[in-house]
Amino acid sequence: MSASPSAPQHPLVTPAVADSPAPDDQVMPGKRVRLAVDRPMRLDSGVEIGGFQIAYQTYGTLNADKSNAIFICHALTGDHFVVEKHPVTGKPGWWEMLVGPGKPVDTDRYFVICSNVLGGCLGSTGPKDIDPATGQPYGLSFPVVTIGDMVRAQKLLVEHLGIEKLFCVIGGSMGGMQVLQWAVAYPDSVFSAVPIATAARHSAQNIAFHEVGRQAIMADPNWRGGNYLLEGTKPEAGLAVARMAAHITYLSEAALHRKFGRNLQDRKAVTYGFDADFQVESYLRYQGAAFVERFDANSYLYITRAMDYFDLAADAGGSLANAFRPGGGTTPVRFCLASFSSDWLFPTSESRAIVHALNAVAANVSFVEIETDKGHDAFLLDEPEFHQVIHGFLEGCAEHRGLSARRRAR
Amino acid sequence: MSASPSAPQHPLVTPAVADSPAPDDQVMPGKRVRLAVDRPMRLDSGVEIGGFQIAYQTYGTLNADKSNAIFICHALTGDHFVVEKHPVTGKPGWWEMLVGPGKPVDTDRYFVICSNVLGGCLGSTGPKDIDPATGQPYGLSFPVVTIGDMVRAQKLLVEHLGIEKLFCVIGGSMGGMQVLQWAVAYPDSVFSAVPIATAARHSAQNIAFHEVGRQAIMADPNWRGGNYLLEGTKPEAGLAVARMAAHITYLSEAALHRKFGRNLQDRKAVTYGFDADFQVESYLRYQGAAFVERFDANSYLYITRAMDYFDLAADAGGSLANAFRPGGGTTPVRFCLASFSSDWLFPTSESRAIVHALNAVAANVSFVEIETDKGHDAFLLDEPEFHQVIHGFLEGCAEHRGLSARRRAR
Repeated sequence: MSASPSAPQHPLVTPAVADSPAPDDQVMPGKRVRLAVDRPMRLDSGVEIGGFQIAYQTYGTLNADKSNAIFICHALTGDHFVVEKHPVTGKPGWWEMLVGPGKPVDTDRYFVICSNVLGGCLGSTGPKDIDPATGQPYGLSFPVVTIGDMVRAQKLLVEHLGIEKLFCVIGGSMGGMQVLQWAVAYPDSVFSAVPIATAARHSAQNIAFHEVGRQAIMADPNWRGGNYLLEGTKPEAGLAVARMAAHITYLSEAALHRKFGRNLQDRKAVTYGFDADFQVESYLRYQGAAFVERFDANSYLYITRAMDYFDLAADAGGSLANAFRPGGGTTPVRFCLASFSSDWLFPTSESRAIVHALNAVAANVSFVEIETDKGHDAFLLDEPEFHQVIHGFLEGCAEHRGLSARRRAR
Repeated sequence: MSASPSAPQHPLVTPAVADSPAPDDQVMPGKRVRLAVDRPMRLDSGVEIGGFQIAYQTYGTLNADKSNAIFICHALTGDHFVVEKHPVTGKPGWWEMLVGPGKPVDTDRYFVICSNVLGGCLGSTGPKDIDPATGQPYGLSFPVVTIGDMVRAQKLLVEHLGIEKLFCVIGGSMGGMQVLQWAVAYPDSVFSAVPIATAARHSAQNIAFHEVGRQAIMADPNWRGGNYLLEGTKPEAGLAVARMAAHITYLSEAALHRKFGRNLQDRKAVTYGFDADFQVESYLRYQGAAFVERFDANSYLYITRAMDYFDLAADAGGSLANAFRPGGGTTPVRFCLASFSSDWLFPTSESRAIVHALNAVAANVSFVEIETDKGHDAFLLDEPEFHQVIHGFLEGCAEHRGLSARRRAR
């Protein structure tokens, strides 16, 4: 094992439980696998972990030559329940607008995979899980993971599934960061990549918003230095505030104005008090309260940190273009980028910077900015033009990849 | 006394202490006065308060016909220490860039007044003060105040100073809201008005950010339902998080990028932990920690609420233009509005809406959008073009008002 000076010094190799179900295996639907059992995976921090669990789902059927696999990367608080009822909230899958039979990511045609990220809390190993070395939840002794580490684990999963080359990797927001990381780290294992509403590095403003969320969590006395599971408390208030702050950044000012404006909540006049007078206040409180039901506070710390650390150019010696020059050549990956005009969290300028870098290496890239007032969340919503772009791009890639058309495939 | 159904039912008339100094009178510099001693002031909530204290400062000399008074309205966390060392932080006055001898708001020429808002915590009566009816701090039993109430108290102060008509009312952000309120409520008492980086109503997004801050404070167990002063605790963690979230909104993405980018704090590499790795994190933490030293958490609740409630058009039957039609005519007030191109908290569109309303009533109005990357905070910073605009507008107004030029006045 090797570790950076400040990284945890104990190896997180857990081969003893490789075949044992995790505590939540009985209640949480979906597939799961223990990876890096025989050979630990080295994290960017230098810590090595082995035998960690990755929870995932698949939709559709892998074709004979295993050339029709699409890997979906989820966003910060997403999970692998892409097109099915969420096991905790009971709500529809988070990307049913885009993925499913006959949808742009057509599960009648493609084999779709999505896994809960390493460090997550919906089945993949993360800070809420039991550290076999101590028999107690990891808490902050879980190693800090990066976008690179998440994708490393995804690559192991894809190999476990016997797939050498993904037809496409697609995702929005933090999912888009993973898509970029896939293309940069494993250019020969990705035929096409669709990074949506994302950036090649987390901006100062976005780090700042994440830091506010983390401080809100860590300021909650129930957080207990990260040991809340051990101590039987739950930093719900802090996590809810973190979610509320983040949620504002997912919407545009126009969308908030359209949805709520200054409308009052169940009353005809203000109350001259601190109840939720305005609908937007009530909405935010609801978002905060609902979130704590489905998400682990420490996972929120770890995953926001992974996003903050993401900086593709820095990893490539300061030049983003260099990130797309594997072995000095041009990336073979076909790219399609999409941004949303009212997204101020990952504005179009961030996508444009990636496009410029791809152009600089003469990569195959298309890019579209979708006009919408829905803000960052637009990638999760009903945006016909966006869906048409994804459909068209995948059609073109399928043709180049030699995948048979949908009707013949069925 | 009259009160809305949900407003506190006890009158806050405190004539008995009209001549007594407040507890902090000995330590806090500046002037103070008890207002509405003989006749209580009716708040928008319906609650009547009397004998409340307003802390204020004046700079320069009132001329013989009392026609050279400029009233400065401070922003959310501002105070009346405009051009002097702050008694708590020891920092320079918050508007020394704009106000002072020879500055655009020339204290050699004008008599400048600024008061701490009603509900504040730097000397004016607010939730941290002792309720004479109970002998304990008001806490949440303090009545909710509005921008209208703040300005009502300012009007009493101005009358107390024997000034019938202000030469100018000027302020940015919440200060700008008060400027607008002055012009609408007392059009004959204001010769000119300069609302800067402000809006005629608080937007859904801004209400949302305020609600996050309030929830952060109220989630802090040390807040104790608002009774922290009585119980000897201090909701510092919650207030710091509130300040951190708000602080991001005061800066532009470009300013954050220029100031901090992804620069690391005192280190050459990330630590793979949750310390402040990035300078922007360290900066935010400092802002939060410094703020709790000088501000009362309940005052933060009250003043943010006042901003949320602000809606000039709603008060004028739904038409902003009507707000500027006193008695059916056109407002006699001369307006100069300024916005900043990178201000996303009070974007130019908000100022433009006010200008359109003023144009609709054929009011005397000038407007400029200052090109800057400094965001909302630009009104507090070194922005030469902005300062020239204020200087030029006041010069023109002084001429119209018949105020002698500076050299002759000295």
